[in-house]
Amino acid sequence: MFRKLVTFEEAKELIWQTLQPKPLGTEEIPLLEATNRVLAQDAISAIDIPPFSRSTVDGYAVKAEDTFGADENQPSKLKVCGFVAIGETPRVTVAKGEVAEIVTGAPIPDGADAVVMVEETEREDDVLNVYGSVTQNENVMKKGADIKSGETVLLAGKVLGSREVGVLAALGNAKVKVYLAPTIAVLSTGGEVTEPGKPLPPGKIYDINAYSLCAAVWESGGKPIYAGVVPDEKVPLRRALEQALASADIVLTSGGVSVGPKDIIPATVDSLGKPGVFISGIAIKPGKPVTVALIGEKPVFSFPGHPTSALLNFFLLARPVIQAMAGKVPTELASIKAVADRRMFSAKGRRTFVMVQLVLDEVKGILAEPVESGASGAITTLAKADGFVEIAENQQFVDAGEQVRVWLFKENA
Amino acid sequence: MFRKLVTFEEAKELIWQTLQPKPLGTEEIPLLEATNRVLAQDAISAIDIPPFSRSTVDGYAVKAEDTFGADENQPSKLKVCGFVAIGETPRVTVAKGEVAEIVTGAPIPDGADAVVMVEETEREDDVLNVYGSVTQNENVMKKGADIKSGETVLLAGKVLGSREVGVLAALGNAKVKVYLAPTIAVLSTGGEVTEPGKPLPPGKIYDINAYSLCAAVWESGGKPIYAGVVPDEKVPLRRALEQALASADIVLTSGGVSVGPKDIIPATVDSLGKPGVFISGIAIKPGKPVTVALIGEKPVFSFPGHPTSALLNFFLLARPVIQAMAGKVPTELASIKAVADRRMFSAKGRRTFVMVQLVLDEVKGILAEPVESGASGAITTLAKADGFVEIAENQQFVDAGEQVRVWLFKENA
Repeated sequence: MFRKLVTFEEAKELIWQTLQPKPLGTEEIPLLEATNRVLAQDAISAIDIPPFSRSTVDGYAVKAEDTFGADENQPSKLKVCGFVAIGETPRVTVAKGEVAEIVTGAPIPDGADAVVMVEETEREDDVLNVYGSVTQNENVMKKGADIKSGETVLLAGKVLGSREVGVLAALGNAKVKVYLAPTIAVLSTGGEVTEPGKPLPPGKIYDINAYSLCAAVWESGGKPIYAGVVPDEKVPLRRALEQALASADIVLTSGGVSVGPKDIIPATVDSLGKPGVFISGIAIKPGKPVTVALIGEKPVFSFPGHPTSALLNFFLLARPVIQAMAGKVPTELASIKAVADRRMFSAKGRRTFVMVQLVLDEVKGILAEPVESGASGAITTLAKADGFVEIAENQQFVDAGEQVRVWLFKENA
Repeated sequence: MFRKLVTFEEAKELIWQTLQPKPLGTEEIPLLEATNRVLAQDAISAIDIPPFSRSTVDGYAVKAEDTFGADENQPSKLKVCGFVAIGETPRVTVAKGEVAEIVTGAPIPDGADAVVMVEETEREDDVLNVYGSVTQNENVMKKGADIKSGETVLLAGKVLGSREVGVLAALGNAKVKVYLAPTIAVLSTGGEVTEPGKPLPPGKIYDINAYSLCAAVWESGGKPIYAGVVPDEKVPLRRALEQALASADIVLTSGGVSVGPKDIIPATVDSLGKPGVFISGIAIKPGKPVTVALIGEKPVFSFPGHPTSALLNFFLLARPVIQAMAGKVPTELASIKAVADRRMFSAKGRRTFVMVQLVLDEVKGILAEPVESGASGAITTLAKADGFVEIAENQQFVDAGEQVRVWLFKENA
């Protein structure tokens, strides 16, 4: 191998073509736990909805023809033959000249074909005066009028929200078949990195990336597996990568992809199986040393150690793959329009992503303020950057005052 | 009580004033499980970050003054006195006339105050030729330059996303104190309603609302408790409501709030405790019969049985309360701009919410198409409605072709 830079567009296409991400399988889970999961088969109704013709008003079930010609001066006089309760099979049949009292939602009894609203009637014991006429099916919701048995109501691939969960319940489902959420092992590398929660030895710093990437995986619909910090040494690194590949559907690493003597990730990943590393460097900033491999059927993304770069490149490159493996149609990040607060320069010949903070200005509206993302201030940058502005390879800069689209790291940032 | 309609704005203000929703308490959880939870105390760094002055390049640690005047023709000749590894306390001290080899991220050894990049040097055994000068602190990230010990990095109330999780990890936290997620009991009422997953008896339909509302609760940051279907009878209803109040922080019901003889929810809720029902009817469409109560310290929202109305009114009225009890600043629903496809009428004197489906038109852009939300087609409406358009009380209609804001039931609808 390697170290042939590809463009950002080439990288995205290579990733798509090489990984061909698709759902990994399905599982049946309780519908009450299915929010945000992805429907794995078309939802086809096994029943008519409503399952019976039902009244849409409180009133009296009648034969419509018995009301024809009735008005305020000449009411139809009909005999009340019974009452239809809600939630039960009617015990009465409506014959010519008869009505049955009925409430909203109750089944239309045999013999009746319409319902007169209670407001149009006056009752004296068993005799009902009907002061208006109804047509056939008036105030009746026919069996199957909403959904017919055999009708497809939701398509596979739909992300289940409150509405879809309600629709599936309406069909009688307490369980639902969804796509498996892909599992993603996340490990950090580096001799100077210590796991949070442990004492900090001299010369070390706490790991950020395994945590931030696990959170980003969760937000993208994957199931993160925290694989901790691995030293920058060939043997433990190789063992950790093998374990990660055995336990997960995708592996993410950060650190160790630059060209220093200690940057052994690409070679180690490549040695783990075929086809191996297929992207080793992308003409983007930040993220030039990003490495992507396919080991057997499992994608391995190796990001730089800089926290903002790792997270940004996760969102740009890995998130759509995780979404596709989760059965979703990959979605763009949320974005908003803002005004560039200062001139933002691009890196020559590289697709440049400038981290920005959003600030509301009373006069100018929403401003996008560049956040320094150099070596100094890794955490400050991470804390401040609400999102990023993209500058094309052939564009020198975005000028102050220009409208820009800001891609957000979080909805409702 | 009751049946005095309040306006939509009055209802929102009454809810806020009466319920005064606030967080219920805190818990400490693993940071790896904290995504989407709400930080319950300011995150204050207990350490300097970086915890030591470190090199930002590969090169040689020097006393800056030893390089003054050096250039390509007149290199400084300095003695290599050792090597500083990453992740360790330096074992060397740099004296005048000396340098120590150093890699990116390694601690600056005592005696040195700058780093010369390797590209500016040439080494012959123990002698280093330095072809450029550096100033004090050049290529050095000083101890505490990113974050100082005692500095507040995140404020309580922040919803934790990938960036915030990364920042908390950087401070060394493996656990984090978050606000408790409020628990919300959800029950459906109605003699004709059967729980999904059970056989459907004659005259019955499957419940929708307990399922769709549980999903909506989950999406809003609450913990749903499915309380199933309760018959429209005083004794079991009262018992179910008492159980729900005992097990949860908020209770949601649907059905049984209209003025029919069976609509016993408001009276039963009001009898459960003080201050009782404080909203009983709102001048909105749909949702006129919505009832809101406070029983002791627990809010009870009672929505109509129509699925779209129940869900809409949950989003309008209950969601902000749940968010506030979860410690969040209540957020608006996501929205997008669209063009009204047809004229949409409002209900006289009521704030009207018209369910719409979004359709992409090649010429006109995103169209908002009204979805029928009458009694016919409850599930069809639920399946189709991507969101809703709001029409003010004093506005007769929104005209075809007008730009409208569509509030979305789901991000990425």
